[in-house]
Amino acid sequence: MKQIEAIKEFGGWLRRYQHNAISCNCAMTFSVYLPPQAQTQQVPAVYFLSGLTCTDDNVRVKAGAQRYASELGRALVMPDTSPRGNDVADEPDRYDLGQGAGFYVNATQAPWSRHYQMYDYVTKELPALIESELPIIPGLKSITGHSMGGHGALVCALKNPGAYRSVSALAPICHPVQCGWGETCFSAYLGNDRDAWKDYDATELIKAGAQPMNLPIDQGTGDEFLDDQLHPQNLQTAGKAKDFPITLRMQRDYDHSYHFIATFIGEHLAYHAQALEV
Amino acid sequence: MKQIEAIKEFGGWLRRYQHNAISCNCAMTFSVYLPPQAQTQQVPAVYFLSGLTCTDDNVRVKAGAQRYASELGRALVMPDTSPRGNDVADEPDRYDLGQGAGFYVNATQAPWSRHYQMYDYVTKELPALIESELPIIPGLKSITGHSMGGHGALVCALKNPGAYRSVSALAPICHPVQCGWGETCFSAYLGNDRDAWKDYDATELIKAGAQPMNLPIDQGTGDEFLDDQLHPQNLQTAGKAKDFPITLRMQRDYDHSYHFIATFIGEHLAYHAQALEV
Repeated sequence: MKQIEAIKEFGGWLRRYQHNAISCNCAMTFSVYLPPQAQTQQVPAVYFLSGLTCTDDNVRVKAGAQRYASELGRALVMPDTSPRGNDVADEPDRYDLGQGAGFYVNATQAPWSRHYQMYDYVTKELPALIESELPIIPGLKSITGHSMGGHGALVCALKNPGAYRSVSALAPICHPVQCGWGETCFSAYLGNDRDAWKDYDATELIKAGAQPMNLPIDQGTGDEFLDDQLHPQNLQTAGKAKDFPITLRMQRDYDHSYHFIATFIGEHLAYHAQALEV
Repeated sequence: MKQIEAIKEFGGWLRRYQHNAISCNCAMTFSVYLPPQAQTQQVPAVYFLSGLTCTDDNVRVKAGAQRYASELGRALVMPDTSPRGNDVADEPDRYDLGQGAGFYVNATQAPWSRHYQMYDYVTKELPALIESELPIIPGLKSITGHSMGGHGALVCALKNPGAYRSVSALAPICHPVQCGWGETCFSAYLGNDRDAWKDYDATELIKAGAQPMNLPIDQGTGDEFLDDQLHPQNLQTAGKAKDFPITLRMQRDYDHSYHFIATFIGEHLAYHAQALEV
């Protein structure tokens, strides 16, 4: 991997890398914030998965997360949201399909399957890469995300019990098989068999018997996508039926923007930092 | 004035307004973050003046300042960096002259003088407006800024002793009459008489006998504009000759970006919050 940017921030370094990803079969860009502690020791990592239209840049510029990562001594890993490039399938007129909208699945359908293997990329290839190249403790990681990335965080954790010390989500897409965004991407990437979609749906994974784990979730009541796309109540209902410890906090008047993320990311990172005590 | 946006953040509200500015003779947009305390009482205000190319939006999205304003119970006032509009003079191919580059002066030269009255706007019209319309304590204010906005903050405070409880700056343009950015804008806005420029130059104002005040300044040593444009050492030299309490902190490896601002804005806001104790 090649470092393409290094910016000093809160005593640590915000670094950006590019590498040829095997899973996604293309050059991928990601950012890592290494806190000051990483200059002398290995540190645990929190992965932040971003939402539709984002690259690795949005969260590092807008969320204010590096301040907390610096204070807590945790690395912050910020992947892109899809494969990228001129030869990567895309729907350039859509924000919710193709590049910027990888949905953290392994696509099975042409033309998407050639590059859209974001689930493998985020859960396997990227951790292996950074744990071998950067001062990050192998295997000691947690995961969170926003919107499509909140969905991604929940699914990555639910499908890999034990792989993450903790998981949380901000305004996640909780039941993608039941919302427009999910239906669009899952039908393209995974085909018409809706049963196959359930393997990448947090609500359906819980219904199907996923191993219980704590799921702290923050959701704004003023979120413009709450009614049509996010469906946290479906996740909560599924969780209750399976004695699943879901803590859904409805945050009055907050919207879907990074101002909402900025407000609550500190609590999420503190939660993960504690779960990641060495 | 008309509210055009309201976003909940850190328990308070980030609000954006538009109004017909008399000084700038056009519609102006600005943002104000009102902390939770402003729901029940009037609060003091810290003005943040932004740098070249910015609108009111950059700082509110990228600086992470609202978190501190919320904790400290201070309003944050974020003006635009120039007049705007199709009938406002501009150099659309330049980032460092015209719209986005008002330099916080009152222009005297055509075609700029018709709208480019940012000094009056920031020091008089905007404070009067928000102090009459919002829960902000009249006259209790401090000022800071970044780059061109750091220059603006220093000049506004130096030219108005007593008007601001405190002033600080992040990577300010300290000696604009001696740098390319300043020469470009001052010759356009103020004409060829270089003596007239000195009235909007912090270093020259100190040399000319401005009333001493504390000037805490942070400057990154990795700032790509440090050598050619910013000249903090000129300000420091002028300050020493006049027993002016300038605290210039050279921050190792930091650049000119919002990642630098985000790192240090908390200390600046804490400093201003203390100076603004009611």
